[in-house]
Amino acid sequence: MITPFDDNYFMRKAFEEAERAYELDEVPVGAVIVVENQIIAKGHNLTEQLNDVTAHAEMQSITAAAEHLGGKYLKKCTLYVTLEPCVMCAGALNWSQISKIVYGAKDERRGALRYEGVFHPTTEIVGGVMAEECSELMKNFFKSKR
Amino acid sequence: MITPFDDNYFMRKAFEEAERAYELDEVPVGAVIVVENQIIAKGHNLTEQLNDVTAHAEMQSITAAAEHLGGKYLKKCTLYVTLEPCVMCAGALNWSQISKIVYGAKDERRGALRYEGVFHPTTEIVGGVMAEECSELMKNFFKSKR
Repeated sequence: MITPFDDNYFMRKAFEEAERAYELDEVPVGAVIVVENQIIAKGHNLTEQLNDVTAHAEMQSITAAAEHLGGKYLKKCTLYVTLEPCVMCAGALNWSQISKIVYGAKDERRGALRYEGVFHPTTEIVGGVMAEECSELMKNFFKSKR
Repeated sequence: MITPFDDNYFMRKAFEEAERAYELDEVPVGAVIVVENQIIAKGHNLTEQLNDVTAHAEMQSITAAAEHLGGKYLKKCTLYVTLEPCVMCAGALNWSQISKIVYGAKDERRGALRYEGVFHPTTEIVGGVMAEECSELMKNFFKSKR
């Protein structure tokens, strides 16, 4: 069976969110949360617009997904995010007990995977989906800032 | 000079926030953020009420303080919180570049101090202020749940 709903499909949706952040002059990171091939939450980085360091794409998606589900645990959900989550987002994802995290580009400076035990032990983590495009978008953003 | 504005004074205020959480049947953690002896933000855990794992006392205080200051960095601020921050909150506090963190009770299970480099390198961290009272409040809460 050929299904359009694979990791690339949903990462493309997260990437579109990242592009929205870029247009707003925000560090271009985007995320979607998916249950049974359905997107239940979307978010993009809004730290500048909201003047709030906690307004990462993942944090907003976690809050929105819990709101949608009517419960704070995201045990059957998958997060697609264009950049490896930071420590804050990893901690939030841990509390949410999310089932799976798929990220695009690796974050060499602030990525949380360097810390053992920060993500939830039962969360499956997959990296590198659309990594090059996600990374390019970030690089272009920071180049435009110089 | 005798000043009423010492760490105990502000931790008492954070403790009052924790008591508010307790009354709402939330894990009793409270926080205040202070600049030049003035409380600019208060928060208490609301994860159950809001159905949102990100609604920790610290996260809400960070957002409220940034809103008050009109900027996302909390470089001249001190956070008082009744419990050692978790990884999520430590990550958020790192992004905020907060000047100082004073916590009450140690969190043996979820405290972030076990991880090297999770807090911001320039953030001063002091623990153990009103530790016993903060810890008692938590213990009473979990005892009442059994």
